[in-house]
Amino acid sequence: MSNRIRVAIAGYGNLGRGVESALAQNPDMRLVGVFSRRDPASVTLLDSSVPVYAMDTVEQYQDEVDVMILCGGSKTDLPEQGPYLAKFFNTVDSFDTHAKVPEYYAALDQSARDSGRVALLSVGWDPGLFSLNRLYGEAILPEGETYTFWGKGLSQGHSDAVRRVPGVKSGVQYTLPSEEAIARVRSGEQPELTTREKHKRECYVVLDDGADADVVRDSIVTMPDYFADFDTTVNFIDQDTFVKEHSSMPHGGFVIRSGKTGTDSTQTIEYSLALGSNPEFTSSVLVAYARAVHRLARSGDMGAKTVFDIAPGLLSPKSPAQLRKELL
Amino acid sequence: MSNRIRVAIAGYGNLGRGVESALAQNPDMRLVGVFSRRDPASVTLLDSSVPVYAMDTVEQYQDEVDVMILCGGSKTDLPEQGPYLAKFFNTVDSFDTHAKVPEYYAALDQSARDSGRVALLSVGWDPGLFSLNRLYGEAILPEGETYTFWGKGLSQGHSDAVRRVPGVKSGVQYTLPSEEAIARVRSGEQPELTTREKHKRECYVVLDDGADADVVRDSIVTMPDYFADFDTTVNFIDQDTFVKEHSSMPHGGFVIRSGKTGTDSTQTIEYSLALGSNPEFTSSVLVAYARAVHRLARSGDMGAKTVFDIAPGLLSPKSPAQLRKELL
Repeated sequence: MSNRIRVAIAGYGNLGRGVESALAQNPDMRLVGVFSRRDPASVTLLDSSVPVYAMDTVEQYQDEVDVMILCGGSKTDLPEQGPYLAKFFNTVDSFDTHAKVPEYYAALDQSARDSGRVALLSVGWDPGLFSLNRLYGEAILPEGETYTFWGKGLSQGHSDAVRRVPGVKSGVQYTLPSEEAIARVRSGEQPELTTREKHKRECYVVLDDGADADVVRDSIVTMPDYFADFDTTVNFIDQDTFVKEHSSMPHGGFVIRSGKTGTDSTQTIEYSLALGSNPEFTSSVLVAYARAVHRLARSGDMGAKTVFDIAPGLLSPKSPAQLRKELL
Repeated sequence: MSNRIRVAIAGYGNLGRGVESALAQNPDMRLVGVFSRRDPASVTLLDSSVPVYAMDTVEQYQDEVDVMILCGGSKTDLPEQGPYLAKFFNTVDSFDTHAKVPEYYAALDQSARDSGRVALLSVGWDPGLFSLNRLYGEAILPEGETYTFWGKGLSQGHSDAVRRVPGVKSGVQYTLPSEEAIARVRSGEQPELTTREKHKRECYVVLDDGADADVVRDSIVTMPDYFADFDTTVNFIDQDTFVKEHSSMPHGGFVIRSGKTGTDSTQTIEYSLALGSNPEFTSSVLVAYARAVHRLARSGDMGAKTVFDIAPGLLSPKSPAQLRKELL
């Protein structure tokens, strides 16, 4: 197909690799290049026929890329790369520093309006699909409460905290939604719940030779801020099991809207994700939205956008008539 | 608020009543009138201060209504009323005869383009919210399968069939999703399942005096087309319990997308509804989309639309900046 959407990736880590895989599942798009701040010769893609370019040459490629997918981090990469790359490309990113969204949106919008491009921020599942479900839920059931639960998911910060405990050789921490809290929400009682009441923590630890399991467990479950106020369990396993069962990056969660209508009827809308790989799923969302960005840009739209601004039909490779026939 | 969205209702049954209730939960909208083919004096609204007009006077009110919500049935009312009312009003309806969507869409589109109005069809939960989730699921996980399960829900046709069995005084039938089928789908195995394998049927029956329970049960579970090929259970209850526990109209269901990404990771997206009142929920969806229709029309858009064409942000009374800050 000569009119496939030409996509490029800026930044090649877990997310960039996931975007490369996701593009291979979408025959109407093709990966035309990866831009990296590393030495291009040192970056090995899944498909070795795709060129890797130095990030500082990116401006030269502005006529060869329909959408640039930004796969850098929200903390330092995106605040700089987003507004810069939106001067030359239509962009999609997964910016997730919630408190800084207004500021980042304004910078992107300025840049994208100046260049006549579309810049879509904060795409993924949270922010992203979860945000959509918070919006649909509250618009449809204005009298009600929205609950977001995360997990089962690997938490990087808490895993680091576990690994800092003396006697821990390897360790990982999962955040799990509390089944009790979910049951209360599903019942329609609209409880008030803190993040702590909604979640529990589960650790898998390989001990150093000679370390005392009870001491290690105690150090973890009493750790202030991280574990002390949560329902925390610690499981001890051997190194082989650790490598075999705890090397993937699962995640997921729930958005539940519980509301009342008319004659005091209880109505519940529930959206949940169970993800075998968090970065691969986020990448798949980015790729579907890249299609929407390309279409918006082609129709003459410009400026910064969020998932709230994107009509769902723009995400699908199918035509509007086909969507009405097959999916409505 | 003088600039509230002026909404009218065409057809006042369960759905129309639900729309009236839902509008009362949305302070940016107000109900300006109900149009009925019955004698207006015979139609009693929840709020007696709202006027009821004869349907054949509707053309006189075209400048007094921002959005008309059509609450008639898909079989005979909407195919006629939809294209007619779209000549004078922006409209929203819940047309759900799936096979006739292309034909109905074309008629509505013609009418709405001629009048410069927006006509949004097939709004509700299925078609509607379930359609959206089928679309999002397949756009994000192109390699996978989509499953729709219905229930627990009251089935009118099957309840009628139960009541036709000799010896049945009162009866009701619920369709339930099969827990086993859902578990297989959630596991990521992507099974092939027929509608029959995905659902079971549960009947609640009050017997006529002297009727034989075993004979009635046998007549129901062996009834061809309706029950014979399903896992069907029949529960006998007394009339008081029947009235108390089986007079509401619950419904709901699941849309599950099960897919694979990258390194063969299993990814599952699940959307589910548990509805205390089917018509009240459908009405709540219609009202949220009426807001979107008003905004689209005000921005100069026109023609027939489906939920696939509506950017999610248009459903919320909140501003785009507020949505980014509060819900993203």
